[in-house]
Amino acid sequence: MSKKNVGLIGYGYWGPNLHRNFAVNPGFRVAMIADTRPARLERARQLDANLQTTTSGEAITDHPEIDLVVIATPVASHYPLAKRAIQQGKHVLVEKPFCATTEEAEELVRLAKAQGVQVLVDYTYLFTGAVRMIQEIHQSGELGKISYYDSTRVNLGLFQPDVNVLWDLAPHDFAILDFLFGEEPILIDATGYCHVNPHLPDIVYITMHFASSMVAHFNLSWMSPVKVRRTLIGGDAKMLVWDDLNNDQKLKIYSSGITVQQEHKRSVIIPEYRIGDIFSPRVPNNEALAAMVEHCRQVIDGETAAEIGGDRGIRITRLLERTQIILDRNLETVAALRKGNTP
Amino acid sequence: MSKKNVGLIGYGYWGPNLHRNFAVNPGFRVAMIADTRPARLERARQLDANLQTTTSGEAITDHPEIDLVVIATPVASHYPLAKRAIQQGKHVLVEKPFCATTEEAEELVRLAKAQGVQVLVDYTYLFTGAVRMIQEIHQSGELGKISYYDSTRVNLGLFQPDVNVLWDLAPHDFAILDFLFGEEPILIDATGYCHVNPHLPDIVYITMHFASSMVAHFNLSWMSPVKVRRTLIGGDAKMLVWDDLNNDQKLKIYSSGITVQQEHKRSVIIPEYRIGDIFSPRVPNNEALAAMVEHCRQVIDGETAAEIGGDRGIRITRLLERTQIILDRNLETVAALRKGNTP
Amino acid sequence: MSKKNVGLIGYGYWGPNLHRNFAVNPGFRVAMIADTRPARLERARQLDANLQTTTSGEAITDHPEIDLVVIATPVASHYPLAKRAIQQGKHVLVEKPFCATTEEAEELVRLAKAQGVQVLVDYTYLFTGAVRMIQEIHQSGELGKISYYDSTRVNLGLFQPDVNVLWDLAPHDFAILDFLFGEEPILIDATGYCHVNPHLPDIVYITMHFASSMVAHFNLSWMSPVKVRRTLIGGDAKMLVWDDLNNDQKLKIYSSGITVQQEHKRSVIIPEYRIGDIFSPRVPNNEALAAMVEHCRQVIDGETAAEIGGDRGIRITRLLERTQIILDRNLETVAALRKGNTP
Amino acid sequence: MSKKNVGLIGYGYWGPNLHRNFAVNPGFRVAMIADTRPARLERARQLDANLQTTTSGEAITDHPEIDLVVIATPVASHYPLAKRAIQQGKHVLVEKPFCATTEEAEELVRLAKAQGVQVLVDYTYLFTGAVRMIQEIHQSGELGKISYYDSTRVNLGLFQPDVNVLWDLAPHDFAILDFLFGEEPILIDATGYCHVNPHLPDIVYITMHFASSMVAHFNLSWMSPVKVRRTLIGGDAKMLVWDDLNNDQKLKIYSSGITVQQEHKRSVIIPEYRIGDIFSPRVPNNEALAAMVEHCRQVIDGETAAEIGGDRGIRITRLLERTQIILDRNLETVAALRKGNTP
Repeated sequence: MSKKNVGLIGYGYWGPNLHRNFAVNPGFRVAMIADTRPARLERARQLDANLQTTTSGEAITDHPEIDLVVIATPVASHYPLAKRAIQQGKHVLVEKPFCATTEEAEELVRLAKAQGVQVLVDYTYLFTGAVRMIQEIHQSGELGKISYYDSTRVNLGLFQPDVNVLWDLAPHDFAILDFLFGEEPILIDATGYCHVNPHLPDIVYITMHFASSMVAHFNLSWMSPVKVRRTLIGGDAKMLVWDDLNNDQKLKIYSSGITVQQEHKRSVIIPEYRIGDIFSPRVPNNEALAAMVEHCRQVIDGETAAEIGGDRGIRITRLLERTQIILDRNLETVAALRKGNTP
Repeated sequence: MSKKNVGLIGYGYWGPNLHRNFAVNPGFRVAMIADTRPARLERARQLDANLQTTTSGEAITDHPEIDLVVIATPVASHYPLAKRAIQQGKHVLVEKPFCATTEEAEELVRLAKAQGVQVLVDYTYLFTGAVRMIQEIHQSGELGKISYYDSTRVNLGLFQPDVNVLWDLAPHDFAILDFLFGEEPILIDATGYCHVNPHLPDIVYITMHFASSMVAHFNLSWMSPVKVRRTLIGGDAKMLVWDDLNNDQKLKIYSSGITVQQEHKRSVIIPEYRIGDIFSPRVPNNEALAAMVEHCRQVIDGETAAEIGGDRGIRITRLLERTQIILDRNLETVAALRKGNTP
Repeated sequence: MSKKNVGLIGYGYWGPNLHRNFAVNPGFRVAMIADTRPARLERARQLDANLQTTTSGEAITDHPEIDLVVIATPVASHYPLAKRAIQQGKHVLVEKPFCATTEEAEELVRLAKAQGVQVLVDYTYLFTGAVRMIQEIHQSGELGKISYYDSTRVNLGLFQPDVNVLWDLAPHDFAILDFLFGEEPILIDATGYCHVNPHLPDIVYITMHFASSMVAHFNLSWMSPVKVRRTLIGGDAKMLVWDDLNNDQKLKIYSSGITVQQEHKRSVIIPEYRIGDIFSPRVPNNEALAAMVEHCRQVIDGETAAEIGGDRGIRITRLLERTQIILDRNLETVAALRKGNTP
Repeated sequence: MSKKNVGLIGYGYWGPNLHRNFAVNPGFRVAMIADTRPARLERARQLDANLQTTTSGEAITDHPEIDLVVIATPVASHYPLAKRAIQQGKHVLVEKPFCATTEEAEELVRLAKAQGVQVLVDYTYLFTGAVRMIQEIHQSGELGKISYYDSTRVNLGLFQPDVNVLWDLAPHDFAILDFLFGEEPILIDATGYCHVNPHLPDIVYITMHFASSMVAHFNLSWMSPVKVRRTLIGGDAKMLVWDDLNNDQKLKIYSSGITVQQEHKRSVIIPEYRIGDIFSPRVPNNEALAAMVEHCRQVIDGETAAEIGGDRGIRITRLLERTQIILDRNLETVAALRKGNTP
């Protein structure tokens, strides 16, 4: 099968990684890269002297030879660029966050269906060995009924001028949650704080309640001196800890939990907790981005259904939007109270 | 100065620790121990053959020879026992949580003032080397203006029939917060979940907003397979991480943070983050409980002002009560929505 | 069965622990404690007002009522005190290191046999949950043929005036090795250095070669700023890591190892290594010393054979003696060379 | 200054890293790569379509346009290839281990002097931020007089057909030791074991004694299920721990140590140990290999003196050779004893 031509728009932080991974995938050929900053393009050419470059995104969305347009620009331009590419009958892969609004996301999916092209969103985490293994473990029923999902994703920076910490970090967690459980929350609580930029929260705490009686909590921060990437998943049979920074034991499955005894006469439950063995399955450390690129190839070649298709993108954008609304209202309340408190 | 006679009511989980520490403090003599369970009293006598024991708490509150009544019973009985002891002109040391309501706490403090006796609350954490050192560091201004306080206090169990995870674990955090900053929040958010006992939340997430613009977050759980005792304190100068389970480096001070540059023309703040050195002061590992006991002696002997007096107890009980109200309302909403969702 | 009367000689660092554990064992009664320092005896009486104390060890070895003499004095006095106690028909439990020479150890065992009493050595480590579990795992054959045992036992101090780091720390390792494998080395290498006291090595490196083709290495130090208690046991099937300071995962069993392929034509073996899962069995954290005390009771009451009997004591003392000889010769060589090098 | 043409011989494990780093250094141009395996060359061309490749090393050593020959082949071919390149007046950078014998190393250095070219050895570790910082700290006198250097460098594999674990791993440690202290040992002890390949030790323990009274110990293994890269450096003022796998705190400086008091009357030194603060300077995580490549450029351009010149290569090769001799003798003794033991 002939190589698909890839046009990459945006060569900032993530662009070079996409470049490198599309370059080595036998199904693709990186034909052209666009960035408004010539210096970035210069850097791109260092890796490949023959590479075509341009400062205009449209030069790529409109390029007749290009089959797949990869969009790694600031979020505001995702929708217009993707729309234009789709209208030219091209497949698109959009960096997360997918779109600024659910409406945009829904329109892109509609258009793509009409044009018979693929809209894919780069939820790289879904292709990590860890998430794949967690999915297997969960689906095997080993954990039992899931009672909670508790994620801490904090580090220092990386600040971005156009998105807050919610839109920067939460897409990872929301995509994983959607991938593992496919359930939408019945209630979202969100609060946080803007320390650096009065308009962009840099710490956000989110709690989601689900009909299945699972509760999910997300601690997101750009203000932590320590980097933490830890998720606890509690089931009524076993519990799992995913520490993404622990290379020896990314996953630990605890044969620990709570055993609930019969109701007492004074109708008080006396639980007993079991501390048990710990098992750490070996997590293959493939490069997730390479797996994501290969998945794009298979989807475009019709070999498999999309796991990072626009539908998931819509759900996750809706979650971000809903959370942002709650967050805004909460921050307004705090601001009002603070005014009241500080004459 | 003659030894003060101590009567200890309640010989469950914490009682033996109080017994051991009062026994070795030269200022005290453990005269009598009460517990409704003879087997517990038997265990107490193993440590001290001469010890008087009783199954009646009143035998201690009313005992003419006893100077200090230490109450380590379930919370419901704190108020009546403490009240009775105070009315007999005895000093009292009450286990945390101090009282079930702010009203009870306030009345005990009023009575004690009238009787000229001390009401003390066992906030042991305030006497750890770590908290003392954090206080010094904070007061020295080294951290700068505090922007956040983020505490994770999770483990498996220990479930208690009469309190939920909020009243069990939060008193530690609230006492530390009150001790370090002495500021009451202007807004409290709280949510959680009851997995084991439908009436007792075993996971609670709390966020507090302060007029000083500090935000505090507490992740409390009885459902975590891993025990975590970690608090991050972020200042605009430096950041501090307190990992109470790390004996080598309980405290780490990070010369890291955010440097905010001048406003950009497009009115976007471009922050830069600094990753710097880490300093771990040596934390003396004295036994906190022994220090607390010695503090009680000094307060009773009029040598020093109480750091764990009833006033702090009132403030912390009020925080617990306020949080519980928010938590209840939130859980009701979730329950209602869930009913709606699950026909 | 009536309680055995215990006399404890030596109330320094370890004595109080022995006191506490014998006191709570239902089979024993701590009748008398001896120490040359009245202040130490005072401290002992704080725990038990009725306790008899003396500054003379003989007052205990010769005491008609005492059944078991526990010796926790500096090593030089182990032999004379134990001998005298045995001659009076008493059982003895001797602190490690058992004796200063193999000859002494052998004589004590001979005498005890003649007197029909027990000589026991306090190799506490053999009663830890970790060592018991390692023994089970090893005996189950799960690890396969053992190829190496690599122990690191380093920390800062505790310096002792009468023993070097070899006699202080190696008894633990040698006892564990003897307990697990029961094989004596065919060759011992030992070297080290005296930094603080010109006559007492404070760093010692030992390598032992065994006929079974196992190699054992011991890194012992009083000069390390970090405390490490880690042992690797490599088998041709699986490998085990025992980190005694890791409470969550004291033991880790690695399904990792080396798979040797067929000889290549150029007679070079091409091994392949497997990185596999990690399993951490839950290690019960009983107090080892309490288990050791209970074992003493059972042995004295004839309920079980001694696992810490004099015979093991002889073997371990011989290992220490052999190692010391190699170490001395090596240090002399270094000293001579250094003289040569530093005019 | 015009770019120097680089010819790289050997494209196995390390070759691609050298390729990548020479490619991005502005001072160099990777002109040609040689490897006997066409598949490897194919892989090299994937990164640079214009690259010239060859299966003959001589095609590079003899190539008129090439200024620097980089040799990353098995050690046996280092000497003949380097010699031939030098004789053609080319600079050479040789992978570690430099040569198979000190004699070879000395001849290459002699020839290079005669030809006026540089012989450099790729001791990459010397260009890590950690080693540079350790050197600064040591030279500042902060650690005081060095008493020991204790390195653990163990992992599973990587087995190599032509070298044993000594020649594979020790060059790193020996280079660091030579770089930091520049002192040759007065005595070397070495022992180990061959588990997989009867002729290639896969575990080696080395102890070196120095006239300065420093003792160095190296624990090298290809048989450890856990990867450890930890070095302790003890001084009489402070102690340093370098954990190369700990990204947050690669270096920890302990204000801990031993304070020696006055001689006691019974001429026993009573040392006291201080446990103090821990300081972790931020270690810049530059890519060491890139820094090494830039250093090569500077040396070749005469801007700086070589820190990885042939002289250091000779000293390190001599250390390896001396250690191998001791090791062999020791293994022969063990083999003989084992024969004796196993009829």
